[in-house]
Amino acid sequence: MLVVMQAHAKEEAIRAVCDKIEALGYRAHSIPGAERTAIGITGNRGEIEPGTLEEMPGVQEVIRVTKPYKLVSRDMKAENTVVSFPGTDATFGGPGLAIVAGPCAIESREQAFAVAERVHRAGAQFFRGGAYKPRTSPYAFQGLGEEALQIMADIRDQFGLKIVTEAIDNESLELLEEYADVVQIGARNMQNFSLLKRAGRSRKPVLLKRGMSATLEEFLMAAEYVMSEGNYNVILCERGVRTFADHTRNTLDLSLIPAVQRLSHLPIVVDPSHGTGKRNKVTPLSRAAVAVGADGLLIEVHCDPDKALSDGMQSLYPEQFEELMSQVRQIAPVVKRTVPGIGEHATTAASVRSRA
Amino acid sequence: MLVVMQAHAKEEAIRAVCDKIEALGYRAHSIPGAERTAIGITGNRGEIEPGTLEEMPGVQEVIRVTKPYKLVSRDMKAENTVVSFPGTDATFGGPGLAIVAGPCAIESREQAFAVAERVHRAGAQFFRGGAYKPRTSPYAFQGLGEEALQIMADIRDQFGLKIVTEAIDNESLELLEEYADVVQIGARNMQNFSLLKRAGRSRKPVLLKRGMSATLEEFLMAAEYVMSEGNYNVILCERGVRTFADHTRNTLDLSLIPAVQRLSHLPIVVDPSHGTGKRNKVTPLSRAAVAVGADGLLIEVHCDPDKALSDGMQSLYPEQFEELMSQVRQIAPVVKRTVPGIGEHATTAASVRSRA
Amino acid sequence: MLVVMQAHAKEEAIRAVCDKIEALGYRAHSIPGAERTAIGITGNRGEIEPGTLEEMPGVQEVIRVTKPYKLVSRDMKAENTVVSFPGTDATFGGPGLAIVAGPCAIESREQAFAVAERVHRAGAQFFRGGAYKPRTSPYAFQGLGEEALQIMADIRDQFGLKIVTEAIDNESLELLEEYADVVQIGARNMQNFSLLKRAGRSRKPVLLKRGMSATLEEFLMAAEYVMSEGNYNVILCERGVRTFADHTRNTLDLSLIPAVQRLSHLPIVVDPSHGTGKRNKVTPLSRAAVAVGADGLLIEVHCDPDKALSDGMQSLYPEQFEELMSQVRQIAPVVKRTVPGIGEHATTAASVRSRA
Amino acid sequence: MLVVMQAHAKEEAIRAVCDKIEALGYRAHSIPGAERTAIGITGNRGEIEPGTLEEMPGVQEVIRVTKPYKLVSRDMKAENTVVSFPGTDATFGGPGLAIVAGPCAIESREQAFAVAERVHRAGAQFFRGGAYKPRTSPYAFQGLGEEALQIMADIRDQFGLKIVTEAIDNESLELLEEYADVVQIGARNMQNFSLLKRAGRSRKPVLLKRGMSATLEEFLMAAEYVMSEGNYNVILCERGVRTFADHTRNTLDLSLIPAVQRLSHLPIVVDPSHGTGKRNKVTPLSRAAVAVGADGLLIEVHCDPDKALSDGMQSLYPEQFEELMSQVRQIAPVVKRTVPGIGEHATTAASVRSRA
Repeated sequence: MLVVMQAHAKEEAIRAVCDKIEALGYRAHSIPGAERTAIGITGNRGEIEPGTLEEMPGVQEVIRVTKPYKLVSRDMKAENTVVSFPGTDATFGGPGLAIVAGPCAIESREQAFAVAERVHRAGAQFFRGGAYKPRTSPYAFQGLGEEALQIMADIRDQFGLKIVTEAIDNESLELLEEYADVVQIGARNMQNFSLLKRAGRSRKPVLLKRGMSATLEEFLMAAEYVMSEGNYNVILCERGVRTFADHTRNTLDLSLIPAVQRLSHLPIVVDPSHGTGKRNKVTPLSRAAVAVGADGLLIEVHCDPDKALSDGMQSLYPEQFEELMSQVRQIAPVVKRTVPGIGEHATTAASVRSRA
Repeated sequence: MLVVMQAHAKEEAIRAVCDKIEALGYRAHSIPGAERTAIGITGNRGEIEPGTLEEMPGVQEVIRVTKPYKLVSRDMKAENTVVSFPGTDATFGGPGLAIVAGPCAIESREQAFAVAERVHRAGAQFFRGGAYKPRTSPYAFQGLGEEALQIMADIRDQFGLKIVTEAIDNESLELLEEYADVVQIGARNMQNFSLLKRAGRSRKPVLLKRGMSATLEEFLMAAEYVMSEGNYNVILCERGVRTFADHTRNTLDLSLIPAVQRLSHLPIVVDPSHGTGKRNKVTPLSRAAVAVGADGLLIEVHCDPDKALSDGMQSLYPEQFEELMSQVRQIAPVVKRTVPGIGEHATTAASVRSRA
Repeated sequence: MLVVMQAHAKEEAIRAVCDKIEALGYRAHSIPGAERTAIGITGNRGEIEPGTLEEMPGVQEVIRVTKPYKLVSRDMKAENTVVSFPGTDATFGGPGLAIVAGPCAIESREQAFAVAERVHRAGAQFFRGGAYKPRTSPYAFQGLGEEALQIMADIRDQFGLKIVTEAIDNESLELLEEYADVVQIGARNMQNFSLLKRAGRSRKPVLLKRGMSATLEEFLMAAEYVMSEGNYNVILCERGVRTFADHTRNTLDLSLIPAVQRLSHLPIVVDPSHGTGKRNKVTPLSRAAVAVGADGLLIEVHCDPDKALSDGMQSLYPEQFEELMSQVRQIAPVVKRTVPGIGEHATTAASVRSRA
Repeated sequence: MLVVMQAHAKEEAIRAVCDKIEALGYRAHSIPGAERTAIGITGNRGEIEPGTLEEMPGVQEVIRVTKPYKLVSRDMKAENTVVSFPGTDATFGGPGLAIVAGPCAIESREQAFAVAERVHRAGAQFFRGGAYKPRTSPYAFQGLGEEALQIMADIRDQFGLKIVTEAIDNESLELLEEYADVVQIGARNMQNFSLLKRAGRSRKPVLLKRGMSATLEEFLMAAEYVMSEGNYNVILCERGVRTFADHTRNTLDLSLIPAVQRLSHLPIVVDPSHGTGKRNKVTPLSRAAVAVGADGLLIEVHCDPDKALSDGMQSLYPEQFEELMSQVRQIAPVVKRTVPGIGEHATTAASVRSRA
């Protein structure tokens, strides 16, 4: 259920409606828009009688939402959500494409800084690296944990890159909140509802990857779990789905991008590294992802992919990443986007350093 | 890596090998067999030099295991694992089929007892019911939590039924351990590795459901996660996979049963309720599951399915469950299995009651 | 659209309705039932005005059929279709299970007769063998063509086995009609609509295999193509669908059997050889197919599978086929079916021989 | 097997090798390259002894080809195949993108000409329209047949557009050869091997669509069927595959484009109309297809999609097609391609008209 407030409803009126909703045992989600504020009502106790609210001051309309997702929906919020980071012009969902790059896993300080230096120079604003790795085998490298988080925090200080890294449970999420800028929830945890709820209580933006066999509705409902706990900064990520096709590790489903954009105001980025699993396919599919209208890219880059402890097969060499950036920079204007140029945000990085 | 001990190796010799392995920084898993003991070595630090162990007293052979799964493998343990429950003859993997039945979710004491009474009478030895429900929507009924666990514990006291219920995170798993007999890990959490490891440190048997798009290898590796932490009582469960087919909710993949049985010693059961999602398909697919060689069945039963808070469409009426039991009872002998008859284990139940 | 005639409508009345329908430019399909005759109306010119027909003598009711399939539907014909063969008691859809066995391809007279002798002795009533093989590679063995058809005709004369073999185009179908008893349309041709229509004009029963990624509705519509041309003897066959799962060549979808049986009166059999692609899975899945309620089995048998020119990996040894027959013979009674015993129809074969 | 000739081998030497191959009972495929000629050897009689050929004059090397596809492979021919049309600069695989547009089915002369006029004006060089429609239901509109072919021939005369249309069997293919410029084989017939062989004996280029669940290897093998009969002008087409995803009719698998381009010299185009099944997704996915590196696009356009007899949901309005052309025109240069401008090839059309 959705309460649409009048165009110039006062702050007190909005608050009063929220208080009423909470008093009835539901949860109120006030989402300010360009013209008016909408208040989403969630809770699993059935529907409120609309009459209870529509007579309150400042209320324009009470709408029953028939779709299973509410807060993620464009019905709730017509304008695109822009996830921004104070002190930088990097965003997810803004006019500039969000470029997130880095190694699959943080293996050592040297490895991480070497990659960070290259991707920063090529124009990435976000650095990704695994501290906690969800691996199919219990005997495979599971990540350096907090040590990796510390290395990434240092990379932020050094280069001004914002840090994106994955939480695999409540404990790692808690630690991440201290070090990282964006909390990633991986494909295997897309329906780990306890973790989604915990991420919903975090103050950090959440980058949520689509599950390997998740439908569009299930994906949006997973985002709804995060938002229903009060965290509205959710970034969706298409990373390929599992099909019979065997020429790539997963089948990258680019049609999901326009499909999400019709239904939801949330930004959506594409991960062609996991989406294809093959180095030689990452650049063509990155071009395609930008052309289809994605809000950004997640790219795995490693200075020595053959020796990578995980995902070496799909990691780009730094030179390949530079070439990729040059190509997407040419495509971006067709979809009315920009891509940061080489060294363009060096100043920002410098100012971050001096502040530190 | 696997150390095969001589046929009559002494307890001290086995212990000495285990100590040596642990001293080297690995984990030793001693698994006694009918004829000889095997000791699995796990840990993600590369391989031990075989010479280190093969000269020790009582060691017959040191084998490199090339498959990614070790402890779940028949290489490690040739005989079938039988998960048994003290004080009853109910098992998973023994000569009798394990019949697990009950409602999708515990909705109330009345509802739960009504179903329990019927499924017990029809021959089930295990009662299933959800206390914590992983639901696609955050606004759907999420289960009664500890209240439901208490109800199920009372059902065990009343009817002697062993309790199977799902843990969705560390907190619920901790509570479950106090109340339940078998901890279920659901399909959506099959690669929630933190939860798998926690389940591996539990003393309760773990019923692990196949993920919606898990390959055989990924499924066995998930079981390996549990076993690698020391819990060897793992029961696998096929519950359908996601495909293009739309005449059932999932596509039940019965060929997985013989495939698992070739590679692993672990018992495997089938859930035709989730596997088809349609009441009228549950009985035919239950017959097929027994005929293909499964070690048991998980069946959703509800006295008033139309009013069920979840999964009503796929829940059997108690009469239908009785008919199902009568049919699988006829098929079981073909695959050298038995199915408990009506009232057959009433005595066990009674003795449980008097002990309580 | 469907015209239901009165219980004792006269032959002339039925004919008059059919004539009227044809005069209006549609096609009439008169299908006699146990109690009354139904007349299906097909043609792609929109619907007939019901009033035109419902006042005619003998007409009880005119029903709009909303499902896309008409002639295959139970709405049209409530009783199961039984495809029978004059001079034998072998049927598809009758009380006895139809057992179709033989090599993937006819490689030589010796090979074919050797297999035929064994499967006949073990109780099969139908012999299958490829004369025209649809192979993924143009350079693979494509079958012996008419020579293979002649060999199979001789096998019928010798053993009384009915012959099932695949047509891959109009030319092979034309030849097949002279030699074979059942025309098989393979999975790759399930939506080769020209071939389906041609098969619909044949007087031979058609065994139609499900396409690799066909939905239930598409499968029934393919059968509708055959029936719409006037051939009502269609036998459906589940042979596995393509999914991400890699432990079998295809994923055998046994839930299709009860799903088809609810919607259609046509018999449906299962091919666990192609459905699994692995010899060691054929027998367990055959047991499951009979238990789920299938009307029969298609089994690949070869006396020397390692030297087979195609599908050797999934062909049973004759001893394994005998064991399979013994197991399904035990399961059949549970689903109220019989399986011909060893030598049981030898007399029939003998009488066929003496007639020849 | 592949015979690589010396750089300046004479015509007689090439002929002699071909004659020798044919004399041995195989088929020789001489494929001239930029620097040297390669001769492919096909036939299903096992391998030729290399010594037989490598001593012949002009032969440089005899190579065993281990991949199952030979003629489609880059091993056989390193340079891209360019399918061209005398009297025009339209190609598949050349520097200009091939734009194929038109209605799903030819419904009438008026409808077809109206669409042709608009797509020609917007820059398409090829006109597509169905004369023979493979429809799931036998009762759905099956196409106007030869009448449609005549209409399209008139469209070619009028606008200079080359005609692409589908053959569904040998009969329709025979007729098509008289009227059309490119013979399309649809997804449902991708493994109709009889039809592929017949197309291989045609002198018209063949546009081969990927089957709904075809792997990359099966797709290339289907092209190999056509080429093995001597028709080397094969154009591949990705049109989406069947998966669990339900937000589009099929899942468009754009990663196939770079995968094909690594293995094969054949051109590959993308059909985002069938690939998504939704009008609002066609333009974004067209941009992505060009960006990923496809050689062209197949787009369904209809002047009144709501009244289309088939595929109305996925057909663009002419204005949308013009907008699409404008967008892909901006992306093409990034992948070193051109797109014909508005009216650019009007002269060619005029000259065709005057010739007629």
